[in-house]
Amino acid sequence: MLIVMEHHATQAQIDAVAARIRELGYEPLPIPGANRVAIGVLGNRGYVDEEPFRDLAGIQELIHVTKPYKLASRDFHPEDTVVRIGTVEVAWHRPPVIIAGPCAVESREQTLAAARAVKAAGGRVLRGGAFKPRTSPHSFQGLGEEGLEILAEARAETGLAVVTEVMRIDQIERVAEVADCLQVGARNMQNFDLLRALGEAGRPVLLKRGLSATLEEWLAAAEYIVASGNDQVILCERGIRTFERALRNTLDLGVVPWLRQVTHLPVIVDPSHALGRRDLVPPLARAAWAVGACGIMVEVHPDPARALSDGPQSMDPEGFAALCAELDRLGALLDAAAP
Amino acid sequence: MLIVMEHHATQAQIDAVAARIRELGYEPLPIPGANRVAIGVLGNRGYVDEEPFRDLAGIQELIHVTKPYKLASRDFHPEDTVVRIGTVEVAWHRPPVIIAGPCAVESREQTLAAARAVKAAGGRVLRGGAFKPRTSPHSFQGLGEEGLEILAEARAETGLAVVTEVMRIDQIERVAEVADCLQVGARNMQNFDLLRALGEAGRPVLLKRGLSATLEEWLAAAEYIVASGNDQVILCERGIRTFERALRNTLDLGVVPWLRQVTHLPVIVDPSHALGRRDLVPPLARAAWAVGACGIMVEVHPDPARALSDGPQSMDPEGFAALCAELDRLGALLDAAAP
Amino acid sequence: MLIVMEHHATQAQIDAVAARIRELGYEPLPIPGANRVAIGVLGNRGYVDEEPFRDLAGIQELIHVTKPYKLASRDFHPEDTVVRIGTVEVAWHRPPVIIAGPCAVESREQTLAAARAVKAAGGRVLRGGAFKPRTSPHSFQGLGEEGLEILAEARAETGLAVVTEVMRIDQIERVAEVADCLQVGARNMQNFDLLRALGEAGRPVLLKRGLSATLEEWLAAAEYIVASGNDQVILCERGIRTFERALRNTLDLGVVPWLRQVTHLPVIVDPSHALGRRDLVPPLARAAWAVGACGIMVEVHPDPARALSDGPQSMDPEGFAALCAELDRLGALLDAAAP
Amino acid sequence: MLIVMEHHATQAQIDAVAARIRELGYEPLPIPGANRVAIGVLGNRGYVDEEPFRDLAGIQELIHVTKPYKLASRDFHPEDTVVRIGTVEVAWHRPPVIIAGPCAVESREQTLAAARAVKAAGGRVLRGGAFKPRTSPHSFQGLGEEGLEILAEARAETGLAVVTEVMRIDQIERVAEVADCLQVGARNMQNFDLLRALGEAGRPVLLKRGLSATLEEWLAAAEYIVASGNDQVILCERGIRTFERALRNTLDLGVVPWLRQVTHLPVIVDPSHALGRRDLVPPLARAAWAVGACGIMVEVHPDPARALSDGPQSMDPEGFAALCAELDRLGALLDAAAP
Repeated sequence: MLIVMEHHATQAQIDAVAARIRELGYEPLPIPGANRVAIGVLGNRGYVDEEPFRDLAGIQELIHVTKPYKLASRDFHPEDTVVRIGTVEVAWHRPPVIIAGPCAVESREQTLAAARAVKAAGGRVLRGGAFKPRTSPHSFQGLGEEGLEILAEARAETGLAVVTEVMRIDQIERVAEVADCLQVGARNMQNFDLLRALGEAGRPVLLKRGLSATLEEWLAAAEYIVASGNDQVILCERGIRTFERALRNTLDLGVVPWLRQVTHLPVIVDPSHALGRRDLVPPLARAAWAVGACGIMVEVHPDPARALSDGPQSMDPEGFAALCAELDRLGALLDAAAP
Repeated sequence: MLIVMEHHATQAQIDAVAARIRELGYEPLPIPGANRVAIGVLGNRGYVDEEPFRDLAGIQELIHVTKPYKLASRDFHPEDTVVRIGTVEVAWHRPPVIIAGPCAVESREQTLAAARAVKAAGGRVLRGGAFKPRTSPHSFQGLGEEGLEILAEARAETGLAVVTEVMRIDQIERVAEVADCLQVGARNMQNFDLLRALGEAGRPVLLKRGLSATLEEWLAAAEYIVASGNDQVILCERGIRTFERALRNTLDLGVVPWLRQVTHLPVIVDPSHALGRRDLVPPLARAAWAVGACGIMVEVHPDPARALSDGPQSMDPEGFAALCAELDRLGALLDAAAP
Repeated sequence: MLIVMEHHATQAQIDAVAARIRELGYEPLPIPGANRVAIGVLGNRGYVDEEPFRDLAGIQELIHVTKPYKLASRDFHPEDTVVRIGTVEVAWHRPPVIIAGPCAVESREQTLAAARAVKAAGGRVLRGGAFKPRTSPHSFQGLGEEGLEILAEARAETGLAVVTEVMRIDQIERVAEVADCLQVGARNMQNFDLLRALGEAGRPVLLKRGLSATLEEWLAAAEYIVASGNDQVILCERGIRTFERALRNTLDLGVVPWLRQVTHLPVIVDPSHALGRRDLVPPLARAAWAVGACGIMVEVHPDPARALSDGPQSMDPEGFAALCAELDRLGALLDAAAP
Repeated sequence: MLIVMEHHATQAQIDAVAARIRELGYEPLPIPGANRVAIGVLGNRGYVDEEPFRDLAGIQELIHVTKPYKLASRDFHPEDTVVRIGTVEVAWHRPPVIIAGPCAVESREQTLAAARAVKAAGGRVLRGGAFKPRTSPHSFQGLGEEGLEILAEARAETGLAVVTEVMRIDQIERVAEVADCLQVGARNMQNFDLLRALGEAGRPVLLKRGLSATLEEWLAAAEYIVASGNDQVILCERGIRTFERALRNTLDLGVVPWLRQVTHLPVIVDPSHALGRRDLVPPLARAAWAVGACGIMVEVHPDPARALSDGPQSMDPEGFAALCAELDRLGALLDAAAP
């Protein structure tokens, strides 16, 4: 950490900061400047908590050099982590993976039809929500336990791996019996108790980025899971909230190559939730492939016009099959070009 | 709801939309325009779910006229709701209330000292976290059960009412034994299961605005609690996330008079978390008073320099007492001027 | 326009709104609802100014159905506009175009070297700033007139078309003698006098999106140019400002397919300015191709480490040539797949 | 500046950075850490340009300790600058000032009526736009020269000082003949040529904050004017663009006390443009007073319902007079309490 003193800070204030640094077992390094003094903190092995420093008089700014994630960082774990959803591998430097299915499990027929469509088009993981978080208390909230049973049946019939959302700690055990991967929704990205519990759940976790989460906060949330003993974490970019409201969210594809440098955990992209419109999914899915994501997650529904939730962003089986074929060709080309 | 058709929508597409409206038990009203047709949806009694409509061909935009909150709205409940935290009343058209205390309960001594300082200065409610959500898994996470016991002692000694945060459903019952008001943190604003459970907890709820929550989403979150049977909800503005990072968050005081028109639920302001710096709390607290908020929540610590959490934003007892005295005079003036 | 009345609006207030609508030559259509009345405005041929309506008592909200751009919209001009920069065509349904060159013209040698590298790799348009807007008054501000002469020489030698920025009306005439296309920077996107003057400049205009411009504002800015007589406008997405600061800006690729539906004007993408880091340019350039953009604009410098401006985001000639080759293959594939 | 090296940076990379620092006439100070090395840059007298450093291999991050404004900063100019608009003084530690008038000069009658209302209520400066920037090319664009003559007449009759907007360099001379203070609109905050020209205009400048300008960018824009020889600059907070769209902009009052510490230039607040609704102006004006602003700028129109521009946010003369009286009492109280 670097502690920047105010222009008019007194020597006594500078000394007090240095003393506090020593109290904490670190070593102060004064850095004189033309306009102000800065003091480096040496000797720390991890993130330096800023609380004990910031309150001293004469301090202008605290600048962190160490980041609040270490286990999730490539600095300390340079090799890619390979996350296994059933037998499907998700990682940097692996062929990207297609995860698809309905937003919500609505019925046995709907879910089985969607699963067959996903399988037929070459998708490898089925998504579908049994528990649904909804902004309004009066919207459809998911089938719950019945939905889990339907997912289990779809998995048994098609052989697809299954990913589904958990919203509460007391759902983890039951959901983990059915699902190959547990999803944490954007609204729960900083539900720290849930993250910690998922560290011990024995299943990979798909961690969606919060609507206004910085990259640092997102990686720190992944750190909660890894620090609790589970390194099988997939990060999922699903659009952030910005001033622009013509589209539902702003899909932030620039984070994908940045994260590839910073973390060993794989990153996938969800264009369906980001844009909220089916017709915009194929171009953004292609872009996710081109930018180097480890996979995509898209919504597919056998009859989007009748979907109970997020119908407008769901693709129908024909559109989805065409997209998969296109991504296949694109993947071959990009793979050939990769260094 | 108003359904705006595309410029080139065909008559068949327009008819299909009208048919869908009738299927749902509503009545379509076509509104011809120079460039496009719009279709009004008549006969609904509440918020119209957009799912069944948006997926039809030829639709450009769906515009909601009814809002996703009804119970929280003044339209259907014109009179102010008076929320009672112990014997303290929080409401529009009531003298504003000061809620204060340490960010986290750290020890018996610290909490009792803070409580005495709050009481002495004229504060009426004690705040203090026993359970703390923290961005990094290695920061201090609160004293938990021991913290609750300390709060109970502080309450018994000073007679102050107590507000403290609940993070999980399974904490509600125990926290409700000790606290007069249960706080939902910004990160949990859309933890819908928690909100629903709080609807049945028999205690007032202080609902912080999510870091990037729109006013509509915030009111819809309050609607979850009210719809579950609990109208004792206080909204707390605590700063939103914007592009500006020189200050921690952007305190959005303009929402206070807007909310006063839109909702009967009281609104308070938390300048400590919004700005993250003690020296900026008094001017923003004065501004909250002047803009007409129903109260403020500020952090007070007997020895801010030694606080385990959020020390830099905590006021010391002397500063807090001076602020309370100033707000008192300000309140008398504003009260005299009120229509 | 739809005028939504307040829940408690009186009949007299509703009548006053209807009267105002008639005064303006339009026709009111009352739309009764369960909770409130809305009034449609019929008979307008373009965007309805909201000023005369909004001020009447009892109005809750004004909702525009017509957008503030008409000439830029596909509704009234369904065919793609083909913009010609010299002999280079930029349009939807045309092969995407590569515009490249240094951020700033720094010297004859640097610019000619960059131009040769662009030409050799298959780029078709040279970019380079003679006039540079800079946040700080003490940074390098561009060579001005001398820079224009250098650009003219590079153009004569390589045959590349040239695009360069104009910052002031009094620069337009001189810049138009040298440049095949005039660029408007993000900070000037709403410099309306400049836009109007460019409508009469007889040169195509490359209009960068403002840092926090909504899609509606961006299209309305293009409308200024088109309405002044110049339909040769290229829109350039270059990243928007969001809460995320780990990367310089957030490149908003989702707008590309959306704009393709909404406007006949071509859209290109500038990944260099959006991300601010050279190593992130190739993946985002590929993504721009995959999402269907009409081209990209990237920074190339013969010796990026010595660039006077934006060095870290400039590619060197080798990296640029490799990118162009890759985009070429990608383009062939996407073209084969296009419907 | 602090240069943070990557975790795996080699000694050769570290040496190359140190060598570059020396080339520029500064001195490198290596700061070893557990995970990475950082290198301090010593000996600079002002802002260090990051271009020459950032491009070297092995660098992770460049952290500025010196800010891109020096003349505008209290560090180098601790005393308040008193800006004089005619005989009206605007400064920290002076009674706050009320600037008021119509958004646009529409006619002689309207402007004179507004000016008399402003004068009668105790306002000291008249605002009114002769040149108006408008998002859509078809909206009312101001009266131009005729508007200036009307403002001159209003000034002569009432004795009020006048502030009005300049949009172009070629307007400055003429506007400066009529106006006591020249306003730069939010869209022009980074129109650097205009700022420089205003540095030599011999009139105070009222510089509005850009819609998405950081505090650093805003102060750097002021630096342009001061560096060109004019220290008579007033900063005006007028709302920023955020994700929230229920209100027009988000008025950022927290910046006022922050700026009071950082800059000697006075800061005023414009609640009319921020909120866009007349009924929200009085509570936010009171809040601006309470937070310690040096003044406010509000819109007043003799007949808001007939205003050609921004009618809904304009107060009528009665409402304005009531507000002024209230602010007067508030000011007396705050003044008595000030340290």
